Amino acid sequence: MKFEDIDKLAISTLRLLSVDQVASAQSGHPGAPLGLAPTAHVLWRHMKFNPKNVGWINKDRFVLSNGHACALLYSLLHLSGYDYSIDDLKQFRHLNSRTPGHPEAELPGIETTTGPLGQGIANSVGLAIAQANFAATYNKPNDNMIISDSYTYVFLGDGCLQEGVASEACSLAGHLKLGNLIVFYDDNKITIDGKTQLSFDEDVLKRFEAYGWETLTVENGDEDLNAISDALERAQNNKDQPSIIKVTTTIGFGSLNQGKEVVHGSPLKEDDVKQIKKKFGFDPNKSFVVPQEVYDFYKNNIINPGIEVNKKWDQILETYLAKYPKEGEEIKRRLNEALPSNWDHCLPTFKPEDSSMATRKLSEIVLTKIVHELPEVIGGSADLTLSNLTKAKDSVDFQPPQSGIGDYSGRYIRYGIREHAMGAIMNGISAYGANFKPYGGTFLNFVSYGVGALRLAAISNEPVIWVATHDSIGLGEDGPTHQPIETLTHLRAIPNLHVWRPADGNETVAAYKCAIESKHTPSVIALSRQNLPQLEGSCHKKSLYGAYIIYDVENPDVIITSTGSEVYLCIEAAKLLKKRSNPIKARVISQPDFHSFNKQTKEYQLSIYPDSVPVVSVEAGATYIWSRYAHESIGINRFGCSGKGLDVYKYFSLVPEEIAKKVDIILKSYEGKVVYSPINKVLPL
Amino acid sequence: MKFEDIDKLAISTLRLLSVDQVASAQSGHPGAPLGLAPTAHVLWRHMKFNPKNVGWINKDRFVLSNGHACALLYSLLHLSGYDYSIDDLKQFRHLNSRTPGHPEAELPGIETTTGPLGQGIANSVGLAIAQANFAATYNKPNDNMIISDSYTYVFLGDGCLQEGVASEACSLAGHLKLGNLIVFYDDNKITIDGKTQLSFDEDVLKRFEAYGWETLTVENGDEDLNAISDALERAQNNKDQPSIIKVTTTIGFGSLNQGKEVVHGSPLKEDDVKQIKKKFGFDPNKSFVVPQEVYDFYKNNIINPGIEVNKKWDQILETYLAKYPKEGEEIKRRLNEALPSNWDHCLPTFKPEDSSMATRKLSEIVLTKIVHELPEVIGGSADLTLSNLTKAKDSVDFQPPQSGIGDYSGRYIRYGIREHAMGAIMNGISAYGANFKPYGGTFLNFVSYGVGALRLAAISNEPVIWVATHDSIGLGEDGPTHQPIETLTHLRAIPNLHVWRPADGNETVAAYKCAIESKHTPSVIALSRQNLPQLEGSCHKKSLYGAYIIYDVENPDVIITSTGSEVYLCIEAAKLLKKRSNPIKARVISQPDFHSFNKQTKEYQLSIYPDSVPVVSVEAGATYIWSRYAHESIGINRFGCSGKGLDVYKYFSLVPEEIAKKVDIILKSYEGKVVYSPINKVLPL
Repeated sequence: MKFEDIDKLAISTLRLLSVDQVASAQSGHPGAPLGLAPTAHVLWRHMKFNPKNVGWINKDRFVLSNGHACALLYSLLHLSGYDYSIDDLKQFRHLNSRTPGHPEAELPGIETTTGPLGQGIANSVGLAIAQANFAATYNKPNDNMIISDSYTYVFLGDGCLQEGVASEACSLAGHLKLGNLIVFYDDNKITIDGKTQLSFDEDVLKRFEAYGWETLTVENGDEDLNAISDALERAQNNKDQPSIIKVTTTIGFGSLNQGKEVVHGSPLKEDDVKQIKKKFGFDPNKSFVVPQEVYDFYKNNIINPGIEVNKKWDQILETYLAKYPKEGEEIKRRLNEALPSNWDHCLPTFKPEDSSMATRKLSEIVLTKIVHELPEVIGGSADLTLSNLTKAKDSVDFQPPQSGIGDYSGRYIRYGIREHAMGAIMNGISAYGANFKPYGGTFLNFVSYGVGALRLAAISNEPVIWVATHDSIGLGEDGPTHQPIETLTHLRAIPNLHVWRPADGNETVAAYKCAIESKHTPSVIALSRQNLPQLEGSCHKKSLYGAYIIYDVENPDVIITSTGSEVYLCIEAAKLLKKRSNPIKARVISQPDFHSFNKQTKEYQLSIYPDSVPVVSVEAGATYIWSRYAHESIGINRFGCSGKGLDVYKYFSLVPEEIAKKVDIILKSYEGKVVYSPINKVLPL
Repeated sequence: MKFEDIDKLAISTLRLLSVDQVASAQSGHPGAPLGLAPTAHVLWRHMKFNPKNVGWINKDRFVLSNGHACALLYSLLHLSGYDYSIDDLKQFRHLNSRTPGHPEAELPGIETTTGPLGQGIANSVGLAIAQANFAATYNKPNDNMIISDSYTYVFLGDGCLQEGVASEACSLAGHLKLGNLIVFYDDNKITIDGKTQLSFDEDVLKRFEAYGWETLTVENGDEDLNAISDALERAQNNKDQPSIIKVTTTIGFGSLNQGKEVVHGSPLKEDDVKQIKKKFGFDPNKSFVVPQEVYDFYKNNIINPGIEVNKKWDQILETYLAKYPKEGEEIKRRLNEALPSNWDHCLPTFKPEDSSMATRKLSEIVLTKIVHELPEVIGGSADLTLSNLTKAKDSVDFQPPQSGIGDYSGRYIRYGIREHAMGAIMNGISAYGANFKPYGGTFLNFVSYGVGALRLAAISNEPVIWVATHDSIGLGEDGPTHQPIETLTHLRAIPNLHVWRPADGNETVAAYKCAIESKHTPSVIALSRQNLPQLEGSCHKKSLYGAYIIYDVENPDVIITSTGSEVYLCIEAAKLLKKRSNPIKARVISQPDFHSFNKQTKEYQLSIYPDSVPVVSVEAGATYIWSRYAHESIGINRFGCSGKGLDVYKYFSLVPEEIAKKVDIILKSYEGKVVYSPINKVLPL
């Protein structure tokens, strides 16, 4: 590729558009855009995308892992024909603008929501996995019908490289030999605190060599466009390894403060803005200027060629559909993000006489059916496969073909003991499109290791599925370090997140049905280690309401509400209360998913928690959150302990006899009191 | 060091004691103990410790980062004279035993609570930092008075090395050139899922070279004691780099399943137990056998020499105290884990006429006073120093002296953008003893990245301090990815954790006073980015109750309760309600720390939230948890958005006018209802 004066002018335009955005917001990060504009421009000249068809499955993906540099990205998207106007750029970082402070995935040209450092690069590993799987599943190389051959490109800085989630993801990417992943490392030697030598003087490229990556360098990223382009082409040609290109840049290039930390995250001062415009040959008194020849250059050299490539691909797909109607139908369905009609016929139903089973085991049964039914479901586990039971029977590992232990069409991902990367990679797989539904297993307690990524799934509406087994003190001997106490509370407080805790087989089916059909909401499915009976009153349809009556009595004296492994303890307690000489009529509610329940009508909610009946919640964890639904709460507000699961349950009085005793005491104290439904609030959640 | 048959016998004893523990529990991990026993024995012969004085400050520390291998550790502690009997070993993994499923720090000889992978190695970096700081602060090398020269030794496996927290911590350890840190990597090529090649085939030693570590190898860790010993001595002699020794071992050495994943986490079958005992020359029908000569060997070669070294150190300390009475007094005080009497005279008091300030800025003022007053306070930040304002004025960086940018007596740690490692390192610093009080800064939202470590601080009673700024939507432009919504709820549900959210200067003082004086409970101090006024009714003493009346009226119609930056909005709302033509009398509660409030008497709690008065909570975050204290809750149960802080507050109706309006609506709906105090429950938290 040849570069001329127009390229330089385009780069200056990108730089100054970024400076102007930050200046007009008086907030943001000018340093990285000034340093990275040349790399961005060169990359854009190589990238394959169609701004008029942002959902094109075979576009190259670009992820700005150092999301704080987004002024640069918005400038690029503006020049390259995406739906961002100059007015949008002027609204940078303003409320409800299309140019928020960090890239948000619902906006065009933004592949994943980034900003929290380390996430973007890990998302990118997910995008690359998805592309490799899609290609291996549908390409017909012998027929020369390649419908998937795109790259994932990433920008990142020192911050991302310091975060553990990035280390985890990059180690895995090296193992997986993802040749479709190309990372540009902005080596500018500055973080907010100052020089990276304050805390970060490791040999980054050597580390990546250790991971199995190709490593390349560009000495002068401020100006040497040919070097950037050559490195990029070399990386593209290496199909057997991910590549990292260290591009040495000057942070804030052109600013009076270039090379200093002050330019990282503070707007340029007025005089600095003027001098930098002058330096780059622009009018110092004008803002948001794009020379017409730059628009033209982008149109002729980037936008139009992209549209053309997309057209050619459309033709290939058409031929493909004719020649491979079965796969073709599947591809079409997946690109429409629609499940097969009646897909859920594969889901089993459980009867009370079916044998007791841990919900993690029930999860394995359900998951196996789903994986066999839906090619878009791709899962794995952060080690612990034999504990989480996340591997569908007969599934093949997603592995590099040369490893001999799987191939890229495999759908079981060995994440290794890397929970945080697993979460961020799932977000990337989901963001790829093609209806990919990623799931990943670990212990519920270790969802906390990856919650930085889970939170972003909820923010960016990626319906990923966390399979979270060993969900309480019931895990037993591993002890308090492995027993979640606060975790359910934590997860339930995250907006836009299903947190399922099924009580038996039918509720496990409900959890998966909801999770698989969810288009915008991620799910955590919390599952027991210990065996649980199949409950008489359980019902997968009712479960989808989030809470329902699982054991009923007429005119109850008390309502006991619970989730997961404690539901059957409550039913047993209710039976004990009934048998007393002085019987107490207890109704039992199973509330497997707060999020679904909170979306029901108030009428339905009040039918579950009516006025005049005291409600007691029972769950093997922190009780705080239950005050929204129950008058009194039985639970565990301290850490657990090591011992056999049943012994630990006894130790914490979570047995039917003790529950019944407490309910009795509670009822006595409520005698004569007016009882309002706890759910009946003026202000909704 | 020479090794003879008795060493082999001791190693077999360690192996079989571990096998017997797991067999008797029918739960646990025999694989790693069988593989690591030789390394452990050789290390124990080199280690400096006194089992009769477990709190000795100059002991070498040992951390079992692969905590699941704890049967080995209990065996070692038994042989080396710690207070673990054979009966204790027989109770392995039983409820309330002294040999729980993972090592717990309150037990003798256990330096930090491990099990969650990656934590132990990161704790060890903290132990090594603490030792380096203690030594640099008090040693008098010119006088040959060395009171601190101990090492921190670590065992870890592939699991720890895959976790991001370990990557973060080890990169920092390399930067800090911690020559006192020596790690043994159990290279057994097996995880629970099977061969490490499933997910982990990076070149580990090359990675550590990139971090700046010395890397050593032992080819045959199953039997070659001399090689282990030589590598250890070489690592000890390298004072300028941390060292990692890759010891290649056979997981489950001696078992019929040696080298296979099944031996990782499942008890050996009965016939296997018998054959392995026979193989090692023990009676296959006896369990928990320790030959007398092994006891004698440990006594003569490990226990007694350790006691002697401790005695000599006592003499050095005595001389030191005489020669350096000032430092000596300080050392004595710190070893007694006592703060100076009246230490808190340094804390400021704020008056309503003092200028408005962000609580992060107030935190800087308070922290600077504390750091100058207390030499045991050692802090830092995960980058963001200029945003978190965690660096006390005039403080020196904790850096390797040869870096020229600080030295080991410095007390400001540049953690880099490594929140999880920061948390785990703080736990290690605190676990070192000498009254070290570590603090670390990041945005409240990114406490979530490190919560795996914070949870362990709470479990293991390490009173570390997280300084968590930018604690709400008030951070503004950075947008939803940086705005915590669920975080306060999450943290408050963690047992044994103070979660402070001060409203102004006096409450900030209270938070720090409580955190610094806390002996067993960690603290998170959530601080605003935006300016807040100094409140008329605020009081640091009352704040220590966790909740108190900050704006009072007689016979209130309503109680508004709040925390942090919303308290003054509530006071303004109360004033608006008072001014209405139809006045409403609103009392305002400030509840800066739920944990402290929950520990007050019921009488006090009911004085804050009495019967008959509706309570409305106001906080810029998820509302669920407030149901425990309030009848109705104003908050944010969705993600935030990017915009100027004040605009975002307005967007979410968190302004006095809107709060007053909602209170009015709520009160109307409560007219004629019986109102009970929400805090008045039968079951306590």
